[in-house]
Amino acid sequence: MNDQSYAAVPLQWVGPVRITGNVVDDAVDVPLATYETPLWPSVGRGARISTLAEKGIVATLIDERMTRSILLEADDAYTAYTTVQALTGRMAELQEVVAGSSRFARLIDLHHQIAGNLLFLRFEFTTGDASGHNMATLASDHLMDHILSTMPGVRYGSISGNYCTDKKATAVNGILGRGKNVITELLVPREVVEQRLHTTAAQVAQLNIRKNLIGTLLAGGIRSANAHYANMLLAYYLATGQDAANIVEGSQGITHAEDRDGDLYFSCTLPNLIVGTVGNGKHASFVDENLERLGCREDRQPGENARRLAVIGAATVLCGELSLMAAQTNRGELMRAHTQFERSTTSNGSPR
Amino acid sequence: MNDQSYAAVPLQWVGPVRITGNVVDDAVDVPLATYETPLWPSVGRGARISTLAEKGIVATLIDERMTRSILLEADDAYTAYTTVQALTGRMAELQEVVAGSSRFARLIDLHHQIAGNLLFLRFEFTTGDASGHNMATLASDHLMDHILSTMPGVRYGSISGNYCTDKKATAVNGILGRGKNVITELLVPREVVEQRLHTTAAQVAQLNIRKNLIGTLLAGGIRSANAHYANMLLAYYLATGQDAANIVEGSQGITHAEDRDGDLYFSCTLPNLIVGTVGNGKHASFVDENLERLGCREDRQPGENARRLAVIGAATVLCGELSLMAAQTNRGELMRAHTQFERSTTSNGSPR
Amino acid sequence: MNDQSYAAVPLQWVGPVRITGNVVDDAVDVPLATYETPLWPSVGRGARISTLAEKGIVATLIDERMTRSILLEADDAYTAYTTVQALTGRMAELQEVVAGSSRFARLIDLHHQIAGNLLFLRFEFTTGDASGHNMATLASDHLMDHILSTMPGVRYGSISGNYCTDKKATAVNGILGRGKNVITELLVPREVVEQRLHTTAAQVAQLNIRKNLIGTLLAGGIRSANAHYANMLLAYYLATGQDAANIVEGSQGITHAEDRDGDLYFSCTLPNLIVGTVGNGKHASFVDENLERLGCREDRQPGENARRLAVIGAATVLCGELSLMAAQTNRGELMRAHTQFERSTTSNGSPR
Amino acid sequence: MNDQSYAAVPLQWVGPVRITGNVVDDAVDVPLATYETPLWPSVGRGARISTLAEKGIVATLIDERMTRSILLEADDAYTAYTTVQALTGRMAELQEVVAGSSRFARLIDLHHQIAGNLLFLRFEFTTGDASGHNMATLASDHLMDHILSTMPGVRYGSISGNYCTDKKATAVNGILGRGKNVITELLVPREVVEQRLHTTAAQVAQLNIRKNLIGTLLAGGIRSANAHYANMLLAYYLATGQDAANIVEGSQGITHAEDRDGDLYFSCTLPNLIVGTVGNGKHASFVDENLERLGCREDRQPGENARRLAVIGAATVLCGELSLMAAQTNRGELMRAHTQFERSTTSNGSPR
Repeated sequence: MNDQSYAAVPLQWVGPVRITGNVVDDAVDVPLATYETPLWPSVGRGARISTLAEKGIVATLIDERMTRSILLEADDAYTAYTTVQALTGRMAELQEVVAGSSRFARLIDLHHQIAGNLLFLRFEFTTGDASGHNMATLASDHLMDHILSTMPGVRYGSISGNYCTDKKATAVNGILGRGKNVITELLVPREVVEQRLHTTAAQVAQLNIRKNLIGTLLAGGIRSANAHYANMLLAYYLATGQDAANIVEGSQGITHAEDRDGDLYFSCTLPNLIVGTVGNGKHASFVDENLERLGCREDRQPGENARRLAVIGAATVLCGELSLMAAQTNRGELMRAHTQFERSTTSNGSPR
Repeated sequence: MNDQSYAAVPLQWVGPVRITGNVVDDAVDVPLATYETPLWPSVGRGARISTLAEKGIVATLIDERMTRSILLEADDAYTAYTTVQALTGRMAELQEVVAGSSRFARLIDLHHQIAGNLLFLRFEFTTGDASGHNMATLASDHLMDHILSTMPGVRYGSISGNYCTDKKATAVNGILGRGKNVITELLVPREVVEQRLHTTAAQVAQLNIRKNLIGTLLAGGIRSANAHYANMLLAYYLATGQDAANIVEGSQGITHAEDRDGDLYFSCTLPNLIVGTVGNGKHASFVDENLERLGCREDRQPGENARRLAVIGAATVLCGELSLMAAQTNRGELMRAHTQFERSTTSNGSPR
Repeated sequence: MNDQSYAAVPLQWVGPVRITGNVVDDAVDVPLATYETPLWPSVGRGARISTLAEKGIVATLIDERMTRSILLEADDAYTAYTTVQALTGRMAELQEVVAGSSRFARLIDLHHQIAGNLLFLRFEFTTGDASGHNMATLASDHLMDHILSTMPGVRYGSISGNYCTDKKATAVNGILGRGKNVITELLVPREVVEQRLHTTAAQVAQLNIRKNLIGTLLAGGIRSANAHYANMLLAYYLATGQDAANIVEGSQGITHAEDRDGDLYFSCTLPNLIVGTVGNGKHASFVDENLERLGCREDRQPGENARRLAVIGAATVLCGELSLMAAQTNRGELMRAHTQFERSTTSNGSPR
Repeated sequence: MNDQSYAAVPLQWVGPVRITGNVVDDAVDVPLATYETPLWPSVGRGARISTLAEKGIVATLIDERMTRSILLEADDAYTAYTTVQALTGRMAELQEVVAGSSRFARLIDLHHQIAGNLLFLRFEFTTGDASGHNMATLASDHLMDHILSTMPGVRYGSISGNYCTDKKATAVNGILGRGKNVITELLVPREVVEQRLHTTAAQVAQLNIRKNLIGTLLAGGIRSANAHYANMLLAYYLATGQDAANIVEGSQGITHAEDRDGDLYFSCTLPNLIVGTVGNGKHASFVDENLERLGCREDRQPGENARRLAVIGAATVLCGELSLMAAQTNRGELMRAHTQFERSTTSNGSPR
């Protein structure tokens, strides 16, 4: 291993984005690092809309947890079943094991699956300001040791059994929870819809049904209905030192829009935002600066900085989603926007 | 828009990876940019294994195409149906429209879905050395104009109807194709399995069944069975200037392993690799250098550099997948490896 | 094997259902056999609505095929790939093999998947008036023999590789086609919506978005968005001698509704209707009578009776779907309807 | 509505099937009603195998519940969230509401999903010996009334929001539970595998990986990996008066097989068996007789007859699955078996 260097991904600050709700009440600029630089003006347009709505983007955080599923081989299905029964009755003991593995990890729930004689145990933790992958793995390692030494009839299968599920698009994460579950809502007044987005609430709502709901369904999507959450998440995750491979599950989310007497109700439900303000990737100086500018380096209760980071990310997703959806209601607009932006950036020779 | 800067994602070259097959016969170092730096030694271990197998990693490219689905509103289902019938009979005409939109885009196939009166047309193109998102969108824009002006009874719905499918985990991409479909295979001799991977072929094959196949299935995964393709793809995409949001569909792939008389047959099927050597993100100087060092800046037929890039990426995925799978067959190994690596990198204080 | 008898599933004729479109122009009674007898009045209500709409239910058949996927083990992925290449170039030869296996089976397309060294070949046939399971299996058996004796490097894996896909809910059947693909549409005038369904077009359209599209998505559904297609299909399949296990894929379909100035546009897209008028189960005398009364025993071109049967079934599905959806827009209506109907049927003691 | 009659579905008793485990210890004949009569000898072969294994089929029931999800429209996501918080803290109160709706229904858990301002509440009940559809709907009706009258800010959406999920193939039922979750396991001695199934444990295990796991995955299946559970469930459900539309979710299950030193470990995991011994369809005299002969009309604690019925059904599924899987390991066997059986039954002209 040698010649370390860096991939310099172009980064720009966009905003401010106006956010209210149960975690943040602020107007914040957000950093987006991406090679797909037309994303910047697109999110920027959404951000401007957020400042024109009475409450801005209302972001509600409804859950948070990090998970790891271990895999055990049992003598048979009945042994797997009785093992689950026993462990369910010993949660306090398991919580103690976890507490001994980390200052921040706390075991909050346990789910399972049994297939034949295979037992999958899904441990669910809160992990303070860390996204928690390593904390959850370490805690699960301790839990594995504890279980193997106290429960007869089960053997080591794997420290991860893919029922977690990490960096794969599945249904379990949305159903049982993994990462931060944030819902963002924006009520865009009719005249803003018309003048800034050049469309109508009815058109956006209709496109959402046809493209995001029906189109994704026809494609064989799983628990997802949106235009391009992945783009915003990638850019935000890279800019804030996150493990951007988590956009795989992070981008599974649901855009829901309604025409409310001409005003546009636009919401993005993001059940699997996986972000942290401490841990891998957070020591780089530019990450540190970005987190500070985002207001996520304050002296708060453990977890609060990470929740703020998640909520700002979720609001950023809404900005980009709204902008693209509005554009696609108009024939030819998307291609024109791309072409114009690329022409403008080529002229100044900047690295797209 | 102002204060542009960069997200400096740590990058290291790993390898060489030994590759043979219908596109590449070479031993190449690969660049990986990631905040999750334990990935480097993990892929590195897989790379070393590739050099100890007779043919190295045999990578077979079996398909390539870029897609865009437009959405049309038809008068009714019957009109949608007759529109499809008519267009299917006019492929040559549509191909001419596409040829007029770009020097490189070529329309190779057309699929459709009808739901009620909604018509989704999925155009499939080859796009030379570009990953082809913009080329496909531009071509689809021309096709849309052509269809709307020649076919009665259909109206503009959206330039993208999510049946493409771009940056979402769905079934359609694997079934109809999107991006480059590459299968990698490695036959690891028994003694290499034991001495370098500290496991056996039987254990790896069994873990693959239980974790990647059954575990992902239980989680409600869609067309995917692997441990962590997303990690390698993210790092490789960032290092080579790709739109890394495409790891969402790229990471849907299948690991298949067999115990062949003690030797380990290990394969990764990656049906949706979306990479290019020209286009957005490829002008940055470090990207240019990295592509050159990968041998993807040669004067070849259009498409050949991109195919080489895809195949090297697929081989890299196998290296990381093999290494992690082997590690997870052994209780405690994963946590030890992480801890050791992080201790070693923390000691010099650098932000890996 | 002994003591054969019968399961006597209660059957009633409901209708007439008014149908137009590219296969049927008629008003037909339909037989429904089910233990869930409240289905009868529910479908009956929808049938009455169909007679009050100008064109009735417009049913468009857009595709038909029966499929079987064989599984081959290849020496390696490259051999699998070249095998596909070779077979694709020999379609005429394969079609001859199929023609030799049956008077009615015709090979119309061939798709494939390669995973590692495994090759799945999906043969697609038309099968006349038969649903075609056995015809497709027999033809595939011949194709398997032919391939194994002419292509080196591939070996028998399975006569069915589950990529068909038979009686499982998957994405491939909707994307590539299996069975008859029928779309039904009904435009219900505003006053009929109000007086007969006691609701509004807006309410039905909204419920469809929330329940069928979003609710199913949240549940982790695959390519499906409807309230209860399975109920109607089961009853219709049993009454007409079909293999009712095919409701598994048959019930994957999409309800799409729109408020059109107060009128209700209501459509059901059923891509995987698997029915036949000949074959297993069709010899029973009551089946024979039911098929005759449905007009599916006429002396027509091969396939026409089966297409008529499919289209009537699809229209029946719409009747039941519309009725239930309308009921669920009103708080308390479903429970009241069930209770009333069950009370009325219990009173005469018959096992409906 | 008139002219009620019956669909006479051919029924035969097959067996005995030898079953042990935490619910049944018995050898029982099972009734199968189907138009696909080759199913009888196929299940029969599996049944004979069960009698040659030491413990027979070991069936473990690990969970049971019936579910209904209501849909509420909330003022906004935050109101939806606080509603969930409040209800979670009032489980005792909700349980009382349910107890008032039925003698047998008991509320055991509550899950939710929030998407935008839409709130889906999934109520989970035990329902005694009934499959529980109506009991759950009635209880949910009461719960809906209670919630709407006590919680401000939420309005009626639907009595069913498809997050239940009834008669659709989804992920939620397997993850959260719906119906009876039964795992069956059979250890077939090597000589029985060879002499009765004409195959080897290694071949069956390999075919299971390739066909059921990988093949279904490639097809875009959701939480399912088996050859033909739907066939056995349909026949068993019809013969015992069940709502056979529930085979849609019932047939989502996992076959897992292992070569254990030449013996074959074969298991079927069926998480969503929905059966009852009372309720709709159970009053027909043949159903009554069949349930009695199955030993499911005994005077036991509420729920015990239904659990017995579920476990026998699950064992029957294993019999048919094992037989078909073994057959498909041998080239040509499936077609020969079908042809022979059909010739034998055609000769006597009866409509089996």
